[in-house]
Amino acid sequence: MKYPKGVVINSSQNIEYKHRGMGLEDDINMTNQYYADKEIAFIYKKPTPIQATKIEYVNNRKIIKEGYFKEPSTTDYNGLYDGKYIDFEAKETNLLTSFPLSNIHSHQIKHINNIINNRGIGFIIVRFTKLNKTYLLLGKDLIDYIDTCDKKSIPIRYFEEKAYIIEDKYMPRVDYLEVVNNIWR
Amino acid sequence: MKYPKGVVINSSQNIEYKHRGMGLEDDINMTNQYYADKEIAFIYKKPTPIQATKIEYVNNRKIIKEGYFKEPSTTDYNGLYDGKYIDFEAKETNLLTSFPLSNIHSHQIKHINNIINNRGIGFIIVRFTKLNKTYLLLGKDLIDYIDTCDKKSIPIRYFEEKAYIIEDKYMPRVDYLEVVNNIWR
Repeated sequence: MKYPKGVVINSSQNIEYKHRGMGLEDDINMTNQYYADKEIAFIYKKPTPIQATKIEYVNNRKIIKEGYFKEPSTTDYNGLYDGKYIDFEAKETNLLTSFPLSNIHSHQIKHINNIINNRGIGFIIVRFTKLNKTYLLLGKDLIDYIDTCDKKSIPIRYFEEKAYIIEDKYMPRVDYLEVVNNIWR
Repeated sequence: MKYPKGVVINSSQNIEYKHRGMGLEDDINMTNQYYADKEIAFIYKKPTPIQATKIEYVNNRKIIKEGYFKEPSTTDYNGLYDGKYIDFEAKETNLLTSFPLSNIHSHQIKHINNIINNRGIGFIIVRFTKLNKTYLLLGKDLIDYIDTCDKKSIPIRYFEEKAYIIEDKYMPRVDYLEVVNNIWR
């Protein structure tokens, strides 16, 4: 791969380096920042909802002195891509052969169902960290699996059959819009 | 699809009682709940972002012992309506003749600009509480005003000329999708 000024970087070394210590969430946040900088898409991670139970004012500034993290009722990411609404949840697992469904709450699954029923683009991104594989599974295939199979987890062969691989890239790191383009255009 | 028990919401009877004395934010939240219940649209208020600076664990539960409210970098509301991406900010003012632009941060204006440039539906909802008038002003008309007029506030006659009245209704309270329908269809 050629970089500006003819510098050639050994890409295999580079790949090792770039993921060191970075999780899927960081990779997606950097990807979204890349999309926003290039004005390709505007997709944001929603802040974790908080229940503040004690608030004090110090120098006229509101400070939370006691607060609890609430369970999100929707997915973590949503936004705009070329006029279309995009919505997804991202999870990683250390397991080698399956993705436990306990990673996704039932109200998040209901939310994804609502999104696809209303013509939004809804999916999950799942990274099998030990296999170094990142998949995009469409909302409809996630729901199909849950409706059809009474299991606690999705086997990796379901991802191999139904999901789309998101190739590991230098920039953006997790180029999920490339997959979206191939499906929706 | 199978839903968990207790997910069905039937709130229609409580609404009139509950909204007496409520502000624009509550009205919009109830409107969004109505849209979601009817599966018309899925539009959510983003949680206020928090910077947690001290966290403790009590009985394995994460508790914030010190946290600060951060300034939102985007608008408060976004979501999906009929495949389209919708994004807006809602504000009320007690003034009679103008809406102070200090109510909307510059990065929120930039965000709205990004949204409309990428074919999303972006606007602000402004309620003049003492006049009992609620307006929907399109993002492009907001940006036009800011680009053209070097003023600290938008006079109400600009709303009268350019914005759309959102009629006060029983249910949903602030039926902004009626305006969206008239403009985008």
